[in-house]
Amino acid sequence: MIINKTAILLIAAPDKKGLVYALTDYIYHNNGNILHAEQHIDLSNNIFFMRIEWDMGTFGIEKAAIWASLEKIKIEYQMHMSLYFSEDKISTAIYISQTDHCLLELLYNNNQNNLMEIKLIVSNHEKHREIATYYNIPFYFIPIFKENKGLQEGRQLSLMQEQKIELIVLARYMQILSPDFVGLFPHKIINVHHSFLPAFVGADPYKQAYNRGVKIIGSTAHYVTDTLDDGPIISQQTVAVSHKDKYEDFVEKGKHLEKQVLLTATRKHLEHKILVFDNKTVVFD
Amino acid sequence: MIINKTAILLIAAPDKKGLVYALTDYIYHNNGNILHAEQHIDLSNNIFFMRIEWDMGTFGIEKAAIWASLEKIKIEYQMHMSLYFSEDKISTAIYISQTDHCLLELLYNNNQNNLMEIKLIVSNHEKHREIATYYNIPFYFIPIFKENKGLQEGRQLSLMQEQKIELIVLARYMQILSPDFVGLFPHKIINVHHSFLPAFVGADPYKQAYNRGVKIIGSTAHYVTDTLDDGPIISQQTVAVSHKDKYEDFVEKGKHLEKQVLLTATRKHLEHKILVFDNKTVVFD
Amino acid sequence: MIINKTAILLIAAPDKKGLVYALTDYIYHNNGNILHAEQHIDLSNNIFFMRIEWDMGTFGIEKAAIWASLEKIKIEYQMHMSLYFSEDKISTAIYISQTDHCLLELLYNNNQNNLMEIKLIVSNHEKHREIATYYNIPFYFIPIFKENKGLQEGRQLSLMQEQKIELIVLARYMQILSPDFVGLFPHKIINVHHSFLPAFVGADPYKQAYNRGVKIIGSTAHYVTDTLDDGPIISQQTVAVSHKDKYEDFVEKGKHLEKQVLLTATRKHLEHKILVFDNKTVVFD
Amino acid sequence: MIINKTAILLIAAPDKKGLVYALTDYIYHNNGNILHAEQHIDLSNNIFFMRIEWDMGTFGIEKAAIWASLEKIKIEYQMHMSLYFSEDKISTAIYISQTDHCLLELLYNNNQNNLMEIKLIVSNHEKHREIATYYNIPFYFIPIFKENKGLQEGRQLSLMQEQKIELIVLARYMQILSPDFVGLFPHKIINVHHSFLPAFVGADPYKQAYNRGVKIIGSTAHYVTDTLDDGPIISQQTVAVSHKDKYEDFVEKGKHLEKQVLLTATRKHLEHKILVFDNKTVVFD
Repeated sequence: MIINKTAILLIAAPDKKGLVYALTDYIYHNNGNILHAEQHIDLSNNIFFMRIEWDMGTFGIEKAAIWASLEKIKIEYQMHMSLYFSEDKISTAIYISQTDHCLLELLYNNNQNNLMEIKLIVSNHEKHREIATYYNIPFYFIPIFKENKGLQEGRQLSLMQEQKIELIVLARYMQILSPDFVGLFPHKIINVHHSFLPAFVGADPYKQAYNRGVKIIGSTAHYVTDTLDDGPIISQQTVAVSHKDKYEDFVEKGKHLEKQVLLTATRKHLEHKILVFDNKTVVFD
Repeated sequence: MIINKTAILLIAAPDKKGLVYALTDYIYHNNGNILHAEQHIDLSNNIFFMRIEWDMGTFGIEKAAIWASLEKIKIEYQMHMSLYFSEDKISTAIYISQTDHCLLELLYNNNQNNLMEIKLIVSNHEKHREIATYYNIPFYFIPIFKENKGLQEGRQLSLMQEQKIELIVLARYMQILSPDFVGLFPHKIINVHHSFLPAFVGADPYKQAYNRGVKIIGSTAHYVTDTLDDGPIISQQTVAVSHKDKYEDFVEKGKHLEKQVLLTATRKHLEHKILVFDNKTVVFD
Repeated sequence: MIINKTAILLIAAPDKKGLVYALTDYIYHNNGNILHAEQHIDLSNNIFFMRIEWDMGTFGIEKAAIWASLEKIKIEYQMHMSLYFSEDKISTAIYISQTDHCLLELLYNNNQNNLMEIKLIVSNHEKHREIATYYNIPFYFIPIFKENKGLQEGRQLSLMQEQKIELIVLARYMQILSPDFVGLFPHKIINVHHSFLPAFVGADPYKQAYNRGVKIIGSTAHYVTDTLDDGPIISQQTVAVSHKDKYEDFVEKGKHLEKQVLLTATRKHLEHKILVFDNKTVVFD
Repeated sequence: MIINKTAILLIAAPDKKGLVYALTDYIYHNNGNILHAEQHIDLSNNIFFMRIEWDMGTFGIEKAAIWASLEKIKIEYQMHMSLYFSEDKISTAIYISQTDHCLLELLYNNNQNNLMEIKLIVSNHEKHREIATYYNIPFYFIPIFKENKGLQEGRQLSLMQEQKIELIVLARYMQILSPDFVGLFPHKIINVHHSFLPAFVGADPYKQAYNRGVKIIGSTAHYVTDTLDDGPIISQQTVAVSHKDKYEDFVEKGKHLEKQVLLTATRKHLEHKILVFDNKTVVFD
């Protein structure tokens, strides 16, 4: 059984009896077949979260009319809703500085499963042009200095708007984006921080970890917010280190983690499996 | 919000449109509030699995009448159903041979969360009587030899029936139960095998693993079936070993795994979160 | 080949040619057989660390005379040395507050491998007396309030001195020891902190972790120093959590980590496999 | 302190008093400075293993004369010895079939740390030529059918001999090499098997694992011997799976493991940290 086109609904609402019923009733009576449904109740805040995905093949309402048709339920249950369609690829920009292992992981994997449309690569280093060319993706070298920072961010913003970018992946981009820029992309910028947050916020976390003498290092993918390294965490991984590991070994071991958490987080985002509430994420399987 | 009494329904059925709707409709129109709902579709076999749990506090049908009230849905959708109530503690027997680390883990944890009623401990070694007494659980010393095996199993069976045992946990019990005995408890006997199954079936898996020179060892909790170490796997864990680990270190490191996989598997069973199909398990979160 | 009595030498020294030679020469010419030798060079500080263990069975120098016989090498190579003998069991005190899972793990394991002599258990809660009695270990109920803290610590100190305590294991002891007390036991107090340090220093780290929305929690065993939760880290472990885990689940999952890191760290200490330098540990295998 | 040129000695010998002394004496009196020394005693077989690495900068014997100068110790202690120099890069061939993720991992990492000289890539699929060209490595398309197998292996052998290949890395090469070919490269062919050996020997282990319903999958890097998937294991890793993972997810998750175990194993080999005994490996840190 191969399903080609699906609709995906993400919901957050105050928990209330009849909520699930209302949604399944809507889908059933419009001739839809539910393929995936996952729900979560945050008991301390009494918030209900749901992701529901159904087959568009037999569905009785056209794509363009679905949003309006959900209006009644939405109001009755005070739902925050987002609606996505599996056929719509998300337009993405990848930002990168010196190291390219995260970029390569994203490019290689997207070549396999084709979940996003990578519209452009932005870097403050010229050297990644070759790999971008190899993958046929437009490359923009935008160097950043203290003096030109505002200007260059404006240039970036124009690019994002021209290309209708819906997701920015910071694949080891070592510049801090301004709150104004970040504010335009709420929960639409994913960053990989090379530590097990909230340990070692800020610069060179491997050096910090090495100096502290930890026995495990980690990596964190999170949405970017105004506060540095404080956004909602999407994915984390850790690996053991010991006194035998030099600082360089921390960096080396960390690369594997960084690649994996960023790939996992990006994929979850592209599959519309993440809901954010109270600076925390619900990440459905 | 504290929920005291809930009903739990486990369902397996051929996937069909309207299935989820039928269930949520049933619960909603009987004034129930869904607390947890998890579903899984096995796409290769087109089987739908669901666990749905709702609050009994407001529910309009009495406990004793629920099963009958589900009859119509059950037939219409060809559902295999099991119904449980959170207030009904499962009557359990624990079997054990020489080592007691798994027993202690189960006793300690049940003292904390009180998920099962441990009716008796059966062992082919007298020495565990003291710890059973400490926890106020009846202890039965039932030694097994080649000659008395059938007889002793009969004795065990009488005990199980007297105590209405619904779950048998083999917490490192080194005797093989007969197919006849096993047949009376389908998916109601949980065993911990001290290897990463299907590697190292049979006797002394740590010795086998040591001799093979593996770099990781594992442990597996599974339901017991006719075929040795071949039943549906519920939980597995692994840990790294190296040339520095002697056979004794394998045994020692393995103990931590055994405790954890057996505890996890038992808990999932007691929470009615496991469905078995095609010798595999669906284990809901 | 069973070795009963061994000598263990821990060494830290400025790295210098001939160092290993001097030690092996000493052991060889006194008829000793090296059983284990591990070394580590901290390249950034140019410090050499070594643990060397040899059979006392054939060794030509008596136990009491060994220390003096090492004097020459010690001075020539500016070595910091510690000498231990496997037959000398370390006198230990265990401190505990509310939860007993770490205590039980230590007691159960020491019953198996008998690495330390647990002289007493100290608790600010009376309720653990029963388990202490079960294991035949003297139990001291020493409640702590703001007003009596100094007094009670004095009482503890007397007990430590009477019993010649060489190691204090804080097995989830929720009182902060005074700098004066800590100063008397340098690298001789092991604490388990229920977070992945340096994240979530201080009180209720699981609550902090839950509120931050992390996807992995951890546990840390470390030597206690003047600065809270800042001592040299010996062992760390982590486990995955998700939005499905409530605060109580964090606590429950964390228990397994706490038991393991504390057991591992205590064992490494008892086997004389830890060297401390620059607030970091070298932990030999 | 940067060390450029080092000598590395790998030793296996019957354990005997004076062994370590003889080696340190040799190095010390020839003015060498030991940088790394690791030893292991296999107590059940009474075999001593050692890896010792020293600075060639100050060493009193020339590179070409070292082997002969070790003759006396070698004979006296019945040592099996291998001598390597850090400046000599190992000539390597990489074999690959359909999937290229392991190849890319090896190429990318070798570009960073430059541990081996990759002389050629052999594949039974033409499609990898482009990536070989990108990295400037000669590519040989050698298709294999039942009829031409012997012939093509002969062609491969010629290539290996022409290029003086010392290590063959099978980076997901799905053809079975003949015993004759394997016999020419003892402990010089590293394979990655996409299961947690010894579970799921042979073809399509992910399918086997999926059908068995395991909860963890693994990957194994090992030296190739005559017996399929039975050679000495060098590195293994595992990752959790669940009923939610389809066969394709097993394959996808497994790729990360395969890359890591093959990279780790290859690196350990290139750093001369592996000793083989009794079909098992000693892998020094």
